[in-house]
Amino acid sequence: MMSQDLKPITEIATQIGLSRSDIVQYGTFKAKIPLDIVYQQPRRAKLVLVTSINPTPAGEGKTTMSVGLSQALHRIGVNATAVLREPSMGPTFGMKGGATGGGASRVEPSTAINLHFTGDFHAITAAHNLLAALIDNELFHGSRLHLDPKRVLWKRVLDVNDRALRHIIVGLGGPGQGVVRETGFDITAASEVMAVLTLARDLPDLKTRLSKMVIASQGHDMITVADLGAEDALTAILDEAMMPNLVQTREQTPVIMHGGPFANIAHGCNSIVATEAGLRLSDVVITEAGFGADLGAEKFLDIKAPEANLAPDLAVVVVTLRALRYHGGQSLREINRPNLDALHSGMANLNKHLENLRRFGLPIVVAINQFPADTEEEIEWLLKELADHGVPAALADVFGQGGFGGERLAHLVMQQLDETSSHYAPLYEKTESLEQKIEKIVTSIYGGSGVDYAPAALKTLARLHTWGEDALRVCIAKTQYSLSDNPKLLGRPEGFRVTIRDIDIARGAGYIVPLAGDMIRMPGLPKDPAAYRVHVDDDGMVTGIE
Amino acid sequence: MMSQDLKPITEIATQIGLSRSDIVQYGTFKAKIPLDIVYQQPRRAKLVLVTSINPTPAGEGKTTMSVGLSQALHRIGVNATAVLREPSMGPTFGMKGGATGGGASRVEPSTAINLHFTGDFHAITAAHNLLAALIDNELFHGSRLHLDPKRVLWKRVLDVNDRALRHIIVGLGGPGQGVVRETGFDITAASEVMAVLTLARDLPDLKTRLSKMVIASQGHDMITVADLGAEDALTAILDEAMMPNLVQTREQTPVIMHGGPFANIAHGCNSIVATEAGLRLSDVVITEAGFGADLGAEKFLDIKAPEANLAPDLAVVVVTLRALRYHGGQSLREINRPNLDALHSGMANLNKHLENLRRFGLPIVVAINQFPADTEEEIEWLLKELADHGVPAALADVFGQGGFGGERLAHLVMQQLDETSSHYAPLYEKTESLEQKIEKIVTSIYGGSGVDYAPAALKTLARLHTWGEDALRVCIAKTQYSLSDNPKLLGRPEGFRVTIRDIDIARGAGYIVPLAGDMIRMPGLPKDPAAYRVHVDDDGMVTGIE
Repeated sequence: MMSQDLKPITEIATQIGLSRSDIVQYGTFKAKIPLDIVYQQPRRAKLVLVTSINPTPAGEGKTTMSVGLSQALHRIGVNATAVLREPSMGPTFGMKGGATGGGASRVEPSTAINLHFTGDFHAITAAHNLLAALIDNELFHGSRLHLDPKRVLWKRVLDVNDRALRHIIVGLGGPGQGVVRETGFDITAASEVMAVLTLARDLPDLKTRLSKMVIASQGHDMITVADLGAEDALTAILDEAMMPNLVQTREQTPVIMHGGPFANIAHGCNSIVATEAGLRLSDVVITEAGFGADLGAEKFLDIKAPEANLAPDLAVVVVTLRALRYHGGQSLREINRPNLDALHSGMANLNKHLENLRRFGLPIVVAINQFPADTEEEIEWLLKELADHGVPAALADVFGQGGFGGERLAHLVMQQLDETSSHYAPLYEKTESLEQKIEKIVTSIYGGSGVDYAPAALKTLARLHTWGEDALRVCIAKTQYSLSDNPKLLGRPEGFRVTIRDIDIARGAGYIVPLAGDMIRMPGLPKDPAAYRVHVDDDGMVTGIE
Repeated sequence: MMSQDLKPITEIATQIGLSRSDIVQYGTFKAKIPLDIVYQQPRRAKLVLVTSINPTPAGEGKTTMSVGLSQALHRIGVNATAVLREPSMGPTFGMKGGATGGGASRVEPSTAINLHFTGDFHAITAAHNLLAALIDNELFHGSRLHLDPKRVLWKRVLDVNDRALRHIIVGLGGPGQGVVRETGFDITAASEVMAVLTLARDLPDLKTRLSKMVIASQGHDMITVADLGAEDALTAILDEAMMPNLVQTREQTPVIMHGGPFANIAHGCNSIVATEAGLRLSDVVITEAGFGADLGAEKFLDIKAPEANLAPDLAVVVVTLRALRYHGGQSLREINRPNLDALHSGMANLNKHLENLRRFGLPIVVAINQFPADTEEEIEWLLKELADHGVPAALADVFGQGGFGGERLAHLVMQQLDETSSHYAPLYEKTESLEQKIEKIVTSIYGGSGVDYAPAALKTLARLHTWGEDALRVCIAKTQYSLSDNPKLLGRPEGFRVTIRDIDIARGAGYIVPLAGDMIRMPGLPKDPAAYRVHVDDDGMVTGIE
């Protein structure tokens, strides 16, 4: 998109009641909103959570739908803000390309956002790796703590898809070069610092959370950032990154983008300060949780919402006909081929997610994300099926038509916000045992019959009891493709048990991460990476990143 | 420094003739200058190169002197710009603290500049490491080139002092995780991408230089970035970072800060585009070359100046009494204790640097950087000694008194610029052989009697001849403490031979790096790192980084 089609960010700021001096400009089209400006007004907006059924590998277009819906709301006169996660640069050069929505529903300036944006990911990388350097320096000099190199939990991060860094040995080269030990790199979006930044309410809360992060587990002791004394240095590095970013849609409506934690191994939601900014500076906030409702929405409702004392007013569940067909047995290759029978069977997956969201007390709207290959017959069948079961639903073509293509959905969303009310409550209380919390998520949300723990997981649970850390929340890491922990069990699987092979501790974020399967924390590049399709002309015009 | 004492960057821009719409703002006090704005006017400024004698481990205060002199020039009515390197974040948390000058002669906002600034170092880190990931991905998939894992030269970088990353093994964890090989991390300031960015004239030149970088050396072949096809992706990542940054001094005068290559293993000068900006937007440019004149000035005059077709009008040589005493035999512990005899003997070091600069054809001014412990007797002796030998010199206390303390120096600099003219010529021609270029630097500049090559260096020289790369320039990596390759040979050593143990190839930068000694490319943290002395209060006020 050419920059002449965008408004200067100062004009976007005006739309949410902010003056030039209220914001911190980063170039002509990006700005940060200082936290005192965020919190100077009370919350006023309705909060709409956009989620989806279990996605196909191509995704359901939640970001595109969130952007399109916010554009559509502006078209019908509602002062809405899309509040979204910022993209990770690593995958941009890998398989998938950028993460700013698509077609006529995109966040701009998309190339800049997909690259460095305002440097938030770089700040997280720098803070995370300074801590790692301080830990290895402590192993080398041994002046503050008695760290055991075998018990260090803290790894390093980089925002690049680099599989060769997953498992490495550091400290080689002789006794002057450090202590030899095995460790590795995760991608920056998987850093606990990212999770902490997105859950912190303000700078003092950020510092407190950083100080709580566990860097090593030695016998009955946990060693934290506070024990090392590094929380101030990390906070200084993250100072600017704590401010949410203001950008715009293709239709020049406001977008607040901030934080980008993984949705399978972390909570997958934008930052609390970004949501607060939207709630205080506009009338309707459209926000997105990662992957399907079993991962993203569950974590939004059981982690982010209680941490921030938020109550969503409505859930929008994005479905595509191709994903329903896929859950109904159509092969991945043929998901674009019409098939009413498969569609019919695939409804089981959607219905389970709708049941789950109702259990959380949320009113629901289903948004059908229209694709060119969809037939009228299938669409009509789906709309009738949902109407027969009393589920409000609307078809939207926001990719092809932008806000115009989402007007019906926008009207339906506003109608539901007026006519229904949310009775949101989280699934569990913090006071319940860790095992009970895990059990509830697996049985109530995933539909499983129970949980099995591998020995490593049991050992961590025992350690957490010893440390008195039972009040942590639970952020299960599992595949996004199935309600179960097996990516091949599509539709609505039942009777399955979920195996927790190990448990990570994200004490600064306030949760544990039970690992249900092998989660990749550092993606690799494909055989033909997107990096080779980028082009820069002599005037600096970049194409191939969007 | 409190931000209320600074001018908005738009006002600083006005001082160099730029409007709000000419610059790209990064917050209230930082901006970037687009390259088309840089090049839209002709060069007009005089160019003053600030260098020094061989420093003590505490440094000679070149940055402080450069900032102070530019402030002083403004006080006497000259529209001067300080054009400087930007600091590296890694060392900020290690031993030395920030790198924005000191006392009353500092670049502001110093904390922000010492941390992320406008993200240039992060962009270089990201580009460098994307290339590394593409190389390891190529080893893994083997689809484009036939790379031999043993012959890969390209390492990774991070802007952190982390000795444990110097020598690592990557690709562990089984056949799905990559190819096992030994490699390592350098600090970002040591990246060839940094050198390339600082020597590139514009984006097309940047892309060309990136494409020339050598990633592997296999038998008679060199494998380059162009062979991989990654130059466009790297250029896209560096797009914004190519623009020079505009900030201000404590006395609200303009500073252009851009690029920060190491001065021992790289050329150690700010970017060519930054120098161009200063030359085209002000009347006098004060620029600094790293370390002593044997390293920084030699590289400025033999690499940067010919690459950019620049001719410095004057060299300012910074000396401190304590460094002269040190070169005269005073122990490091006692360098602050007055000692006229030591001072007298230490002059040998200064005299050699003055001879060298005259050989390059430059008029010279000596700037005596005053310290509280200096006695009047010593200062008077030094001023008289220099006057007796016809060397223009001035005492300056810019640390304590800012521009006011540098006024005498400023008048002297302006007088010399008016009355003398430069007959600058580089030491060697590109057409001379690589060995001849090295020999000239060692004998003419260092004062050595000859060069010895270790077998690895001879092998690389032979390879360079095979590749037809004899026209590369020479960027010798050696200790900054001595004119020789032995940090303990102070004063003006003679009769020494310099041993080149190996040679690195920086083909994108356009030079080879003969290694005279063990250069550290990834610093470590000290026993008590500066990171632990940082403090952030509840309002986000950061102290301990300046």
